Amino acid sequence: MDNLLKELIDSIGPVDNKLEPVIQQRLDNLTKPKGSLGRLEEFAKRYCLITNQISPADLEKAVIVFAGDHGITQEGVSAFPKDVTYQMVKNFLQGGAGINVLARHVGADVQVVDIGVDHDLEDLPGLIHKKVGFGTKNMAEGPAMTREEAQRAILAGAEVAQDIIEGGKNILATGEMGIGNTTPASALTAVICGKEPSQVTGRGTGIDTSAYRRKIELIERAISVNKPSPTDGLDALAKVGGFEIAGICGMILKAAQMRVPVVVDGFISGAGAIVAKALCPNISDYLFCGHCSVEQGHKVQMEYLGLRPILDLDMRLGEGTGAVLAMGLIEAGIKIYKEMATFDQAAVSPGNEAI
Amino acid sequence: MDNLLKELIDSIGPVDNKLEPVIQQRLDNLTKPKGSLGRLEEFAKRYCLITNQISPADLEKAVIVFAGDHGITQEGVSAFPKDVTYQMVKNFLQGGAGINVLARHVGADVQVVDIGVDHDLEDLPGLIHKKVGFGTKNMAEGPAMTREEAQRAILAGAEVAQDIIEGGKNILATGEMGIGNTTPASALTAVICGKEPSQVTGRGTGIDTSAYRRKIELIERAISVNKPSPTDGLDALAKVGGFEIAGICGMILKAAQMRVPVVVDGFISGAGAIVAKALCPNISDYLFCGHCSVEQGHKVQMEYLGLRPILDLDMRLGEGTGAVLAMGLIEAGIKIYKEMATFDQAAVSPGNEAI
Repeated sequence: MDNLLKELIDSIGPVDNKLEPVIQQRLDNLTKPKGSLGRLEEFAKRYCLITNQISPADLEKAVIVFAGDHGITQEGVSAFPKDVTYQMVKNFLQGGAGINVLARHVGADVQVVDIGVDHDLEDLPGLIHKKVGFGTKNMAEGPAMTREEAQRAILAGAEVAQDIIEGGKNILATGEMGIGNTTPASALTAVICGKEPSQVTGRGTGIDTSAYRRKIELIERAISVNKPSPTDGLDALAKVGGFEIAGICGMILKAAQMRVPVVVDGFISGAGAIVAKALCPNISDYLFCGHCSVEQGHKVQMEYLGLRPILDLDMRLGEGTGAVLAMGLIEAGIKIYKEMATFDQAAVSPGNEAI
Repeated sequence: MDNLLKELIDSIGPVDNKLEPVIQQRLDNLTKPKGSLGRLEEFAKRYCLITNQISPADLEKAVIVFAGDHGITQEGVSAFPKDVTYQMVKNFLQGGAGINVLARHVGADVQVVDIGVDHDLEDLPGLIHKKVGFGTKNMAEGPAMTREEAQRAILAGAEVAQDIIEGGKNILATGEMGIGNTTPASALTAVICGKEPSQVTGRGTGIDTSAYRRKIELIERAISVNKPSPTDGLDALAKVGGFEIAGICGMILKAAQMRVPVVVDGFISGAGAIVAKALCPNISDYLFCGHCSVEQGHKVQMEYLGLRPILDLDMRLGEGTGAVLAMGLIEAGIKIYKEMATFDQAAVSPGNEAI
């Protein structure tokens, strides 16, 4: 493995919980029955512990949307033509996509990264250029990427995250665009989480039953042709992954190293997160699961990561849409922690929890 | 029944769905796979249908917090002393409570109503004065209110909603404060939804097992002493309800009459909503269920209303806290509907849903 990547992984230890009693005491002194704000209190506590502080600053939010293409699309695994990947990149930059609307709603910046789109996008203003290749190869016939390309894509994702965090963001959401990318996401989930492809494959953007069966067969073939390692995340990523999934993995690793929480979006982002976990067992400490995707493999990923989704709104768009909505709720929890009056401040009688 | 109340109820018909095809067509032309934003699309569609328009204005949000006291508290059903009701009213007016923090987060006004607090609050600035009584009577010994008081409290809630809607708000959330009020909420749920008290009674702010058993016995006694009608919502409300629950019921009825959607908070608000449904079978058409409360009777209420909760964050504070967070998600859906680019606008190739 590349030295830079190895150093990054080795630098990520578990989150230290030593501040928990102080944080819990403040939560319990707020004018409400203990624990009655449920997961909002959990979000505040986890945010404080990850960032190792008891007085967090206001949230500065960004979603990073990695875009890449997939050789497997030539087999007909998506309801949309491959060109939609670069067309949607333009839509993101013009502010018209779902992620733009929802990011504006919660006050998050949208950063769009060309990490592997099969189209020349060099002259697009506002786009972050980190292209590792013009789409992956067809994984049904051989590896999607070389091991070296997979590492470069992870490190590219890490660089983007570092720049954005150094620019002042203190919470990140994952996002992606890539026609065909539920297919590598299902393949990675099957390999890393030890499931049959049929258990972790859904209908993506909306395909009919015969296309769905073909998609499962293609994933089975990709696994049988490439023999990806279930324990070597980099091997699995290179053989049956994608550039944007690698970028998400790298973004997660770098943010964890810099103690910045990451809100993971749906099924494709989850694939990036499980690769990160295969490379770095402590990674879940730094992650929030934004929402429960409709894609059936997503639950398997979340069990592997040990994360409980924040939202469940039957969403399956990707782009980071579920993650940014969840960032708004994490922010609500942090505001509860910071802004609510204590029993003393408000002259409210504290309760007796054991009458 | 009072003529004013009868007229209000009779004026509420079912929501007309004739605009649905136009709304659905716009949703399907946005740059995303059809239906991939799940419930966000449902929220937008329902908001448009309730308000009977295809181009809704930006949301102007308010949460109405009705405060009232309960004679049943003298039996020791809460972990908090009764004085906390008026102390929390002051906390609301000073902006330090959970509902204040979360309402600010989503951009909603907080309106606080004294509808039945057992304390003289006449000189508090900012408070809406609609006191019907100084707390209810002890329902374990006789009716909580007279039928006439219950009607006055419903109409008081309706007046508050009308003033706030006429002031420019186009979506409302329900909220409440009342030490002891999970006890009448459980009693109403048992009576109206046809369940045993033990099936719909939880631990409220946090009571131990012996207090919990006593709470169930008191609800059983209140039902046996008062014999509330399972079909006459006004009778049930008067005998085993509360002033703030009546206010919520009235607010819901008036908002529906004025075609303004209401986001129902947790278990106490749900009690107001089931009374409204018992009085007016069409009422669910106008309601969103903000969140799934930890209180076990809440699921029963939502089944009775035919509503699916938006959030599930293990919350049990009340005040409107879950409802205002859900308002933020309904707003997200409306923004998707209004602000996303169409396939034509963004020059993105539409998908083929049956490849």
